[in-house]
Amino acid sequence: MHKLVLLRHGESVWNKENRFTGWTDVPLSEDGVKEAHRAGRLLTGEGYSFDSAYTSTLKRAIKTLWIVMEEMDLMWLPVYRSWRLNERHYGALQGYNKAEMAAERGEAQVKLWRRSYDVPPPPLQDDDPRYPGKDPKYSGLSKDDIPRSECLKDTVDRFLPYWNEVIAPAIRSGEKVLVVAHGNSLRALVKYLDRIPDDEIPGVNIPTGIPLVYELDEELKPQNHYYLGDADSVLKAQQAVANQGKAK
Amino acid sequence: MHKLVLLRHGESVWNKENRFTGWTDVPLSEDGVKEAHRAGRLLTGEGYSFDSAYTSTLKRAIKTLWIVMEEMDLMWLPVYRSWRLNERHYGALQGYNKAEMAAERGEAQVKLWRRSYDVPPPPLQDDDPRYPGKDPKYSGLSKDDIPRSECLKDTVDRFLPYWNEVIAPAIRSGEKVLVVAHGNSLRALVKYLDRIPDDEIPGVNIPTGIPLVYELDEELKPQNHYYLGDADSVLKAQQAVANQGKAK
Repeated sequence: MHKLVLLRHGESVWNKENRFTGWTDVPLSEDGVKEAHRAGRLLTGEGYSFDSAYTSTLKRAIKTLWIVMEEMDLMWLPVYRSWRLNERHYGALQGYNKAEMAAERGEAQVKLWRRSYDVPPPPLQDDDPRYPGKDPKYSGLSKDDIPRSECLKDTVDRFLPYWNEVIAPAIRSGEKVLVVAHGNSLRALVKYLDRIPDDEIPGVNIPTGIPLVYELDEELKPQNHYYLGDADSVLKAQQAVANQGKAK
Repeated sequence: MHKLVLLRHGESVWNKENRFTGWTDVPLSEDGVKEAHRAGRLLTGEGYSFDSAYTSTLKRAIKTLWIVMEEMDLMWLPVYRSWRLNERHYGALQGYNKAEMAAERGEAQVKLWRRSYDVPPPPLQDDDPRYPGKDPKYSGLSKDDIPRSECLKDTVDRFLPYWNEVIAPAIRSGEKVLVVAHGNSLRALVKYLDRIPDDEIPGVNIPTGIPLVYELDEELKPQNHYYLGDADSVLKAQQAVANQGKAK
């Protein structure tokens, strides 16, 4: 049996400001840093260890991973970063306040962009400074791979090749793997593992900073999954995520 | 022309206590953390950027690299850790105070262990808790590769395959490379690049926390090298390293 641990990065400065973040590379907030330390101590306390770690190219996930590695005294672990673990690209919404956008465009429209499976937000134009093709960290990607906007289905489609070609083989070879990523790249993985239908996955909320353990059989089919820590913190954190994007 | 940047980690808590460190995995001191921040700001200020970073499996080098990456806003860089970039293994001397050892065994003997090219310190025994074969971070190594003690020549011999097979090809392919490592693994590289004779390399002191730039031609032959920052800081830092291990 394999144990895979998933961790959503702690609160970022834009989570705090309730803004659509997507691929915008914002740092953790002070609370986000604290969440990461708590996650690391929790994993250590529960006796977890790892052989390798996978994360995105975004600093809020990388910093969360670094803090966890330092808390667990595992700074020597090999770390693999991939854009395929990045948050869903939020297109032209990136940078806008979720509640303001809800007041302006209606809660229903914002909910559709946030929680539909296959409706992408309006795309970025080539000359938009937010277009990732201008960012050196994506200079190795082909133009076709660089998103201008993504629905959750798009995120699933670009995440899965990395799971199948890189992470899954590492787990099968016996490595104890930690994945530190984002709300929607982790939704993509959870959808795939638990075969969650398209219309149900948008309602699955993964809380920030709480390690989520998957027990997988030899064929990497999930046998069980659970959050570490006390149930009350988990519920509160899930509720906080679900409440974002309501007009205030 | 290629530019390669080498950086020796900032002061560790055992540098501060003047103890033989080697593969002992001690953290940076507070001053060491400050040195790393300065190095990162210096590289940013001088307009440097990188495509990939190489470091050891020891936390004082890894933490130095992390701080530099954060200061340079390059947390997304791929990072490769290898035991072949570790500090020289100091065998049975690890943990002992350099000045006390000089008072006990004589300055000449300590200088021989510290500064000869091919005289290793006394080796660790199998049942010594300091033997790296017991450490999970070296569980992937063959027993023959795990050192019990190293002279500088041994460090050169285990470092060079990694240079030839991993770092040099990356530079040749056009990558801008940063190497964050240790006094002796960087000596090994500098010896190789500048063809420094065996009897001269022990006298070459690389200061901590000051970026050392090598300009290499297409065949990776050095054309020039220089430290970033002001000459006075460099000289003082070199002198501090040379003065360790004298009886007080």
